[in-house]
Amino acid sequence: MKNKMKTITIESLSQQAFAPFGEVIEINKHSDFIAINNGTTKRFHDLAKVQIKGINARTAISIFRASPFDLPYSLNFMERHPYGSQSFMPLIPSKFLIIVAQDKDGVPTKLTAFLANEGQGVNYHSNIWHGALVALEKQTDFLVVDREGEENNLELYNFEKPYRVEL
Amino acid sequence: MKNKMKTITIESLSQQAFAPFGEVIEINKHSDFIAINNGTTKRFHDLAKVQIKGINARTAISIFRASPFDLPYSLNFMERHPYGSQSFMPLIPSKFLIIVAQDKDGVPTKLTAFLANEGQGVNYHSNIWHGALVALEKQTDFLVVDREGEENNLELYNFEKPYRVEL
Repeated sequence: MKNKMKTITIESLSQQAFAPFGEVIEINKHSDFIAINNGTTKRFHDLAKVQIKGINARTAISIFRASPFDLPYSLNFMERHPYGSQSFMPLIPSKFLIIVAQDKDGVPTKLTAFLANEGQGVNYHSNIWHGALVALEKQTDFLVVDREGEENNLELYNFEKPYRVEL
Repeated sequence: MKNKMKTITIESLSQQAFAPFGEVIEINKHSDFIAINNGTTKRFHDLAKVQIKGINARTAISIFRASPFDLPYSLNFMERHPYGSQSFMPLIPSKFLIIVAQDKDGVPTKLTAFLANEGQGVNYHSNIWHGALVALEKQTDFLVVDREGEENNLELYNFEKPYRVEL
């Protein structure tokens, strides 16, 4: 069995399950709002912790255009950002795949995969191991809020053997 | 003629036309990108200036759920945020109405209206007068990046007579 590929089964994404890694950016049945603009707009306020540190650090807003993948997905590497959080919000109703892990001495361990459903985005906290951006079904643009600054903010970890991520 | 309602004709939204007020957040034919994630994702980097100041100031990510309006739109007030920028990106393909103004001694003047087309969002710079969030056609959720902090960050100006905003 030692050559059998490790598999990860994809779970449904919820605030509670994702809490160790960051926030789910969404409006759900528990969401509170403030009515603004004379009541024509509902503000669901401050849904994600934006973490920014380092020399000349500032918040950056970008668009990531992600190619679609089929499942099962083969996970070869993970990454993390020591100087800031990173949020992803799809700009069309879409599902995407999220893979996160705990850290053990610089190595991603205890991997978990989530399926983000329509209307859900995520914010990875600083230093949380996560997979690449994986759109499903179709090319998808995401609004990304992360950190710009002087230090190198990307750490990569390549697995010796890929994980198989499946429903 | 002195009781005739003032009208504003809506223009098409472009980076160039919007530059005095902030940035258009979009991918267009001139957009440069960085290939990341082994080439499966294109990063269109740092499309908007996030401005954050004040005591305990930080970036907030929120969702605004905006009710739809019909055109012509009646503009009764404008607002501005002295302590930070505010960006709006629709989470479904949609058009929305943007009204901005120059400032003259604390009064919005020389109003301009833009129609954001599908794929376009905007970032208002700090202290730029702008109208309320105006979705068209259907209820629309927007991802909003703005500033949280201790000082009051909202200044309102009510017009004596409304403006009529039309195509």
